[in-house]
Amino acid sequence: MFHHPKIRNALLFFLVMAITIFFIIGRESSHRQRDTIVEAPIEAPDTYTPNELGVCTGRRWPADVPPLYVITPTYRRAEQIPELTRLAQTLLLVDSLVWIVVDDADEPTPAVVNYLQERRICHVYLIARMPAKFQKLKNPPRGVANRRKALEWLRKHAKKGGAFYFADDDNTYDTRLLDEIRHTKKVSMFPVGLVTQLGLSSPIVRNGKIVGFYDGWIANRKFPVDMAGFAVSVDFLNARPEADMPFLVGQEETKFLESLNFTLDDVELLSSNATTIRVWHTKTKKNNKAILGAKKLNYKDSNINFLQEQIWR
Amino acid sequence: MFHHPKIRNALLFFLVMAITIFFIIGRESSHRQRDTIVEAPIEAPDTYTPNELGVCTGRRWPADVPPLYVITPTYRRAEQIPELTRLAQTLLLVDSLVWIVVDDADEPTPAVVNYLQERRICHVYLIARMPAKFQKLKNPPRGVANRRKALEWLRKHAKKGGAFYFADDDNTYDTRLLDEIRHTKKVSMFPVGLVTQLGLSSPIVRNGKIVGFYDGWIANRKFPVDMAGFAVSVDFLNARPEADMPFLVGQEETKFLESLNFTLDDVELLSSNATTIRVWHTKTKKNNKAILGAKKLNYKDSNINFLQEQIWR
Repeated sequence: MFHHPKIRNALLFFLVMAITIFFIIGRESSHRQRDTIVEAPIEAPDTYTPNELGVCTGRRWPADVPPLYVITPTYRRAEQIPELTRLAQTLLLVDSLVWIVVDDADEPTPAVVNYLQERRICHVYLIARMPAKFQKLKNPPRGVANRRKALEWLRKHAKKGGAFYFADDDNTYDTRLLDEIRHTKKVSMFPVGLVTQLGLSSPIVRNGKIVGFYDGWIANRKFPVDMAGFAVSVDFLNARPEADMPFLVGQEETKFLESLNFTLDDVELLSSNATTIRVWHTKTKKNNKAILGAKKLNYKDSNINFLQEQIWR
Repeated sequence: MFHHPKIRNALLFFLVMAITIFFIIGRESSHRQRDTIVEAPIEAPDTYTPNELGVCTGRRWPADVPPLYVITPTYRRAEQIPELTRLAQTLLLVDSLVWIVVDDADEPTPAVVNYLQERRICHVYLIARMPAKFQKLKNPPRGVANRRKALEWLRKHAKKGGAFYFADDDNTYDTRLLDEIRHTKKVSMFPVGLVTQLGLSSPIVRNGKIVGFYDGWIANRKFPVDMAGFAVSVDFLNARPEADMPFLVGQEETKFLESLNFTLDDVELLSSNATTIRVWHTKTKKNNKAILGAKKLNYKDSNINFLQEQIWR
């Protein structure tokens, strides 16, 4: 049959058409993905106004308020969308905010991308997979690849003013602290609740000066602080091209701060001179992957099939 | 010296003044407490406008938006303020909302009262201690006294329109669900994520009709739903003076719904006809009571003393 010239020509025609269509669709979607999702919908920088790419429209962006860049490492798990939902709803209360969400994933997580776009929160979505050599470790350096990726983005796009803050998606942030952070001139520090058996991590302040650190795990760290306990000015970072966070469990905070090269006299105290707790290291209980179905329940061809696609299995 | 009449008169004068001032201040503050904190700052009801007592000013309260009453049972623990902070910041995004916070406590918790007033969220703060006979049980009916107290308040103060919803302080709520809930005419239901080993609790819907329930724990419950999976119209509740929630572990939801006396045909489906998850049963990891201090750290007469008062020991 394939030897019949008319049929062969028709098949050939369809084959060429199909390849062309696939090529166009593929190009289109990878193009769309690169432009609006994976890399940089925002170029806040020179002025404090977000760019015209659409993601930041509708949010309040007063001209005289310096931008706050909130860097959130995340990864795929049952709690990912709920945690991001809860954090997003805190950030939606804050003016002039760019949320840099960095996913530890090989490719963009559709649920996360969709959520961010649906809520029209001013955001940048990036992916940064933990390097393979660390993935096998029992206690790997979590969130480091993500934060380094965000710093890279900041150096490239955030050229002037404002501050950045590392905010994990399971912590709890009082928006009043976030509004203070944006004015950081160099490095700011403040107390964090619910950390270690002391329930608290904070600079020790006497007569307005930092005289030490109160933290359940001091070790030999020069800056024994929690990741949620400090913020840095964007200009200060940009003036220090060598500064970075190492893949070194337990040393991420101190080594990053040390690489910024400052003294305790440079540190600004927030949260009423470090006398109030406005951020907590809350942790969410891990859920197991969901079991697919209850055999006794008849849910074929029902809404349950749609819902099951939204849960982590 | 006290026998000198001029000095005696002066002392007497000061004494009388001091007593008068103390009396006025004391009366003023106890008055303020009773009126604005412990019981009912709000009388939303006949119209949708909150009253003039000050707690609801500054919030958006559009005339054509029915009120949403969010009932949150809470209790003293290390995570109480962080959890309430996170939930408050979700609720601050929602118009025409009255937050009924019911504390399982013998007297108002100052940290909670202060937080609610500082944030100027439209709220009612009530206390409702679990009855003594249940307190000794290994698995007591948690949050029932609180929810009954809130229902009592609703019946007394919320006379017309809107809906109420039981929202625990550790769950995660997408604000878009909360905006849907307020329009509930009788009883509405919707899916809840992260519950039981199925990771999901939802009505099973086929051709727009509820044909059963998908839940990891069906038992013999008529309504095998999660506390976060339904909402009720205020008018519907007020038309059923007998309806109440029993102190019966595991039967709270179904027995309360049964007491409202309705059929599945009365149920409205939210969250896009129950095809989307917009509320999750997140649970926060319990922290131990904080240890008072690290002996090696010298923090005497520093900010740490103020901070320690803010953590749960």
